Amino acid sequence: MARDERGVTAQSEDFAAWYNEVVFKAALVDRGPAKGTMVIRPYGYRLWELLQSELDRRIKDTGHENAYFPLLIPESYLSREAEHVEGFAPELAVVTHAGGKELEEALVVRPTSETIIGEMMAKWISSHRDLPLLLNQWSNVVRWELRPRMFLRTTEFLWQEGHTAHVDEADARRETRLALDLYHEVARDLAAMPVVPGEKTPGERFAGAVDTLTIEAMMRDGRALQAGTSHYMGTNFATAFDIRYTGESGREELCHTTSWGMSTRMIGGIVMTHGDDKGLVLPPRLAPYQVVIVPITRGGNEAVEQAAQDLARRLRAAGVRTHVDARAQLTPGFKYNEWEMRGVPIRLELGPRDLEAGTAMLVKRLGGEGKRAISIDALPRALPELLDEFQAYLLARATAFRDERTRTVDDWDEFAAAVASGWALALHCGAAACEDDIKSVTAATPRCVPLEGDSESGRCVRCGAPSAYGKRVIFGRAY
Amino acid sequence: MARDERGVTAQSEDFAAWYNEVVFKAALVDRGPAKGTMVIRPYGYRLWELLQSELDRRIKDTGHENAYFPLLIPESYLSREAEHVEGFAPELAVVTHAGGKELEEALVVRPTSETIIGEMMAKWISSHRDLPLLLNQWSNVVRWELRPRMFLRTTEFLWQEGHTAHVDEADARRETRLALDLYHEVARDLAAMPVVPGEKTPGERFAGAVDTLTIEAMMRDGRALQAGTSHYMGTNFATAFDIRYTGESGREELCHTTSWGMSTRMIGGIVMTHGDDKGLVLPPRLAPYQVVIVPITRGGNEAVEQAAQDLARRLRAAGVRTHVDARAQLTPGFKYNEWEMRGVPIRLELGPRDLEAGTAMLVKRLGGEGKRAISIDALPRALPELLDEFQAYLLARATAFRDERTRTVDDWDEFAAAVASGWALALHCGAAACEDDIKSVTAATPRCVPLEGDSESGRCVRCGAPSAYGKRVIFGRAY
Repeated sequence: MARDERGVTAQSEDFAAWYNEVVFKAALVDRGPAKGTMVIRPYGYRLWELLQSELDRRIKDTGHENAYFPLLIPESYLSREAEHVEGFAPELAVVTHAGGKELEEALVVRPTSETIIGEMMAKWISSHRDLPLLLNQWSNVVRWELRPRMFLRTTEFLWQEGHTAHVDEADARRETRLALDLYHEVARDLAAMPVVPGEKTPGERFAGAVDTLTIEAMMRDGRALQAGTSHYMGTNFATAFDIRYTGESGREELCHTTSWGMSTRMIGGIVMTHGDDKGLVLPPRLAPYQVVIVPITRGGNEAVEQAAQDLARRLRAAGVRTHVDARAQLTPGFKYNEWEMRGVPIRLELGPRDLEAGTAMLVKRLGGEGKRAISIDALPRALPELLDEFQAYLLARATAFRDERTRTVDDWDEFAAAVASGWALALHCGAAACEDDIKSVTAATPRCVPLEGDSESGRCVRCGAPSAYGKRVIFGRAY
Repeated sequence: MARDERGVTAQSEDFAAWYNEVVFKAALVDRGPAKGTMVIRPYGYRLWELLQSELDRRIKDTGHENAYFPLLIPESYLSREAEHVEGFAPELAVVTHAGGKELEEALVVRPTSETIIGEMMAKWISSHRDLPLLLNQWSNVVRWELRPRMFLRTTEFLWQEGHTAHVDEADARRETRLALDLYHEVARDLAAMPVVPGEKTPGERFAGAVDTLTIEAMMRDGRALQAGTSHYMGTNFATAFDIRYTGESGREELCHTTSWGMSTRMIGGIVMTHGDDKGLVLPPRLAPYQVVIVPITRGGNEAVEQAAQDLARRLRAAGVRTHVDARAQLTPGFKYNEWEMRGVPIRLELGPRDLEAGTAMLVKRLGGEGKRAISIDALPRALPELLDEFQAYLLARATAFRDERTRTVDDWDEFAAAVASGWALALHCGAAACEDDIKSVTAATPRCVPLEGDSESGRCVRCGAPSAYGKRVIFGRAY
């Protein structure tokens, strides 16, 4: 019996069902009426805001400026970059009527903004002095989704998209890497997700990119989640949109552009990196509530309720995001289950006897220490440290999990076994046909060529041809 | 000759032309490719972010939670509230095709979110314990615009929309007023706009509202700008979307709902409240750069450039948003004009002789004191105070301007003269036909019945019938 009234399907039984139950029961999300759309509920949105504010600060600190470009893009813009339109055409939502009339040219709802930003860059850039042009946009995008999954693949999602223009390849590639490093930092230090930064193989690149960098995370079912990408576009979009500058020598040159994005998909990544059979487990640095205080009052006890509110005030003053669950109609047990489901890192229980002793009972969401009494007066100092420990614990746990499920393999049977439960580090020939063959047999695809991987070459794990990339490739089944 | 190479049309000559030139030349905005859309450039977007963060803080401090609802709404949702669909139908952008197919039901791009949020509220609310439900969303909306003007009327704009549900009328009306008070505060204390809070007359209400509150601002051409609105919906949307709760007594009741919004239109309001023939004048609390330092180096002077950067660091440490204009290829005079055009409150000029004397030349964007030398060491302490003074000066100046152009009139000729250059405070019968008549003759409409207005009644200024509302009404030509 893996499931009761309040509980969820066990991860081990059906991970997809577990995920779907948890995101709804934890009140992160609800279904929108149009196919594949989602409503991000306050608890999920707060998590996004916390991630957003940290990422935004880093984007600004590295010299980028935020701007806002129109949602509706003339259909013809997309066609200007051939690979780009081929990649996105099947996913477009198209506005054909507006203001009570049929439009002369249909407008697409932006699936991403390279084209419209490219058009504006061409207008704004004339001299080398205008470069680099470092822009970022926080926005919603729409990509029609036939097999939606909340946060992971939705018809509409929220993200930031960086778009930059540079004098040459070297500068643009530095930017592509800088953005990836920001994502790596945010994933590791805030979401406690031990991602692997790497380069996409040609078949997995963004539509229109020369190179795509990615951070890949392992979920608790062993699958890979692409958690952020950064693209070097070469002069592809500069050619399509005529983004040129006059160099110091007076010669006209094409810009080299980049784009990079991180989205609300990260919320799904956090759920699947840390969650367990009791529900969500949130990393303290992104948890809307880091601590929940449950006053145990059995039908009303003013002193206890007052003490809970006082403690909350002191914790908030110490910078701890604290919530008091004062709902009179619910039992403490019900509340414990609910806040476990919603992944709050630390719970404090406060009853009349605790109050007399000047203590509260502290329970961590994970880590198996059980309850322990802790002095109320010590909490404002102790909690920030305990939260840091919990954050570090989650990262260490996820790293150990990933390492345990990542196998270096040189044999096809071992490869198949590895990608059934996690990742395989293997040599590969780089041929598209061989990639397709691997995918059809195992459902695994090349996730990335890790940036940090050691140089190595030999024979392709599947076909035996000489290996490409000069390194091992991570293969895994992906979201 | 009202205009030179760098300058703009004089306000007195053609205010609309002045506005249009200023918003582009100050690099606040650019034109988007689809009809009536705009690109908000980094300088304009930063202004919006500063306003946004202050408004967001106030919205959260008053107990509201942010969430995010889908952009695409089934067409049928809008029809559920008859007045609502009538009001918005002519402005809708409609998605008819997506994912390569024609949709069974068309989707509208949200013009506002009462309908989709109403649908979700009905799902989330069951008991009186779920109320009030206090939600807010930061989003883009699309309303097809035939006569677009940057920031003021654009096909797409950014805003926040608050949506709340309550147990009864009294609680919902309190909320409507609370939101208006937030807007009043933000307009006055941040944008230095002395707005008048009031109630809309029936013909000017939001489509589907029982009552609409508004803050009305006077622009420097005497016209009115509606700068934020807050609507009491009664049970109109609760009936249409079946938003009900079980009361303490066990009886099922309809909720009373509200909605309220403030948008990027505020940027246009700031431009037209404070700007002059030299360009923008930005209130310090929202200025992306509060201070610009122009080093005067005549072909390079390392000591001066270094001193400018050092001073900027000290000013930033004192909380002053400071920019150093270090562009080598431009003359100081060119830079002065540019930063005046872009409305930076205070300019500091720093040359070799100033540096020797330990001073900088300080120039305020407005206030007519001319240049004065000020000790560099005193600046980190002095500037925050000077900026506060400048902020207060702008509010006082705009208030005096508004008061001067607002006339209490009881005679039709006086009324026509008043609305030709500003506002008329007049008694009105409240009849729609009489409003229409006034509009056709003078282009003026009732802007609001001021909340603070004294009780008064008598004869309608136009038709002589007994006056309505128990107060004078503000009439003016509106944006």
